[in-house]
Amino acid sequence: EAARMIILEKTPFQEEKLLDLLKKHTKLELQMRNDIYSTYHLYPPPELSEIKTTVVYPATEKHLQKYLRQEVHLIRETREDYENVTLPFIQSQSFSVQWVYNILEKKAEADRIVHENPDPRDGFVLVPDFKWNQNQLDDLYLIALAHRRDVKCLRDLTGEHLPLLRNIAREGTEAVTKRFGVPGSQLRIYLHYQPSYYHLHVHFTALGYDAPGSSVERAHLLADVIDNLATDSSYYQKRALTFALRADEPLFKKFQEAGR
Amino acid sequence: EAARMIILEKTPFQEEKLLDLLKKHTKLELQMRNDIYSTYHLYPPPELSEIKTTVVYPATEKHLQKYLRQEVHLIRETREDYENVTLPFIQSQSFSVQWVYNILEKKAEADRIVHENPDPRDGFVLVPDFKWNQNQLDDLYLIALAHRRDVKCLRDLTGEHLPLLRNIAREGTEAVTKRFGVPGSQLRIYLHYQPSYYHLHVHFTALGYDAPGSSVERAHLLADVIDNLATDSSYYQKRALTFALRADEPLFKKFQEAGR
Repeated sequence: EAARMIILEKTPFQEEKLLDLLKKHTKLELQMRNDIYSTYHLYPPPELSEIKTTVVYPATEKHLQKYLRQEVHLIRETREDYENVTLPFIQSQSFSVQWVYNILEKKAEADRIVHENPDPRDGFVLVPDFKWNQNQLDDLYLIALAHRRDVKCLRDLTGEHLPLLRNIAREGTEAVTKRFGVPGSQLRIYLHYQPSYYHLHVHFTALGYDAPGSSVERAHLLADVIDNLATDSSYYQKRALTFALRADEPLFKKFQEAGR
Repeated sequence: EAARMIILEKTPFQEEKLLDLLKKHTKLELQMRNDIYSTYHLYPPPELSEIKTTVVYPATEKHLQKYLRQEVHLIRETREDYENVTLPFIQSQSFSVQWVYNILEKKAEADRIVHENPDPRDGFVLVPDFKWNQNQLDDLYLIALAHRRDVKCLRDLTGEHLPLLRNIAREGTEAVTKRFGVPGSQLRIYLHYQPSYYHLHVHFTALGYDAPGSSVERAHLLADVIDNLATDSSYYQKRALTFALRADEPLFKKFQEAGR
């Protein structure tokens, strides 16, 4: 029987609804009073307490694993590790990125596209990430998906991809600023390594948002990636890269088997 | 008239109420469907969406400041920016690092030292960070302070400092593992740029701990720093570096005055 995964997330307050919240709440219970401080339980009406709900059906073991808490270890992956361990693993898995192709081909989410550069080599599509409900800018999160399908991840990038990366940086920023009013200086723009899916994509998140996956062991600023490639076209082909893996992930076992 | 401050906080889900949430919700609205993924808005009944409410009355200016959100902006600092804006600012401030010297000279916190390499050029002292109470390993946080006093920050590092950095990486990790039982693969070891004080230091935090300042716009993995310097001794002298500044910070004003 196929598993159905349900993800529930509380979302940030919407500023324009705060007054409603304080006026319309059905119940306010005093919990504690001390000097100038007092605490209450406030029970808001349903329309003011939306919960973001994501359903994955059918959900695979991999989907479930992603959300279970697990011991995490850092891997320092050399170029050789990538070729001998990571790449064969990626290829053996043949992860589906059909949902990405659906977006690129306008078969899904076409109405959600914020910006597109249609060039097949240096173009991309910018869409809000699943994780962002677009109700408030605090947790703004968009994804730029490259049109070309032959770049899996950061490791594949060379100087050849600079025009694409620069398009994403410049046009993506302009589009977010135009649509959402957030200036470039308040956008954290980065790639993940390892990514969660192997089709080149770039994350745009609000700088003030402590977005999952924005920490130094996973995120690589697009500006740094561009500068590194401009200085040395094979920078990401050669150098060691650090990432974290949960102990139950198949790739972690591959690294263990390889004696790392 | 006295100000009344009201703090609203959404609280984590209670596991034992999750089933109620899925059964009793009054409304479920489909937002988007793509392949095996779909997202919904769920509007729970009041008793399942408590909001923690704190009232401070009368509230002082100090109370208000603590909760006012400050705008934060990214700066992309070139080498020239560093020389023309950042460095003059650092020098004009003459920030005191007397507390660091006190530790290095055993005039303070001597009993807290976890490890020392006494070499004046390539040695360092490892101490628990102020922020860590050492009661639990979840938020483990230590700091390695270089003995030499002529290195302010990441910008100053060259190939000359590789022995020092490698000592910190190797001996620091060994010491943390020996004292606290945390293996190297579960340590996030990094420098800040900008740092909060201009005496070379390296952060050791538990990988599972979402430590403040561990995000990509501030943290630089020590392993990456070492590799970059080994490849190009002047890597950090030449390249642009990104960091975030609050709009009320003096250095931010300096960058504005410089027209950045």
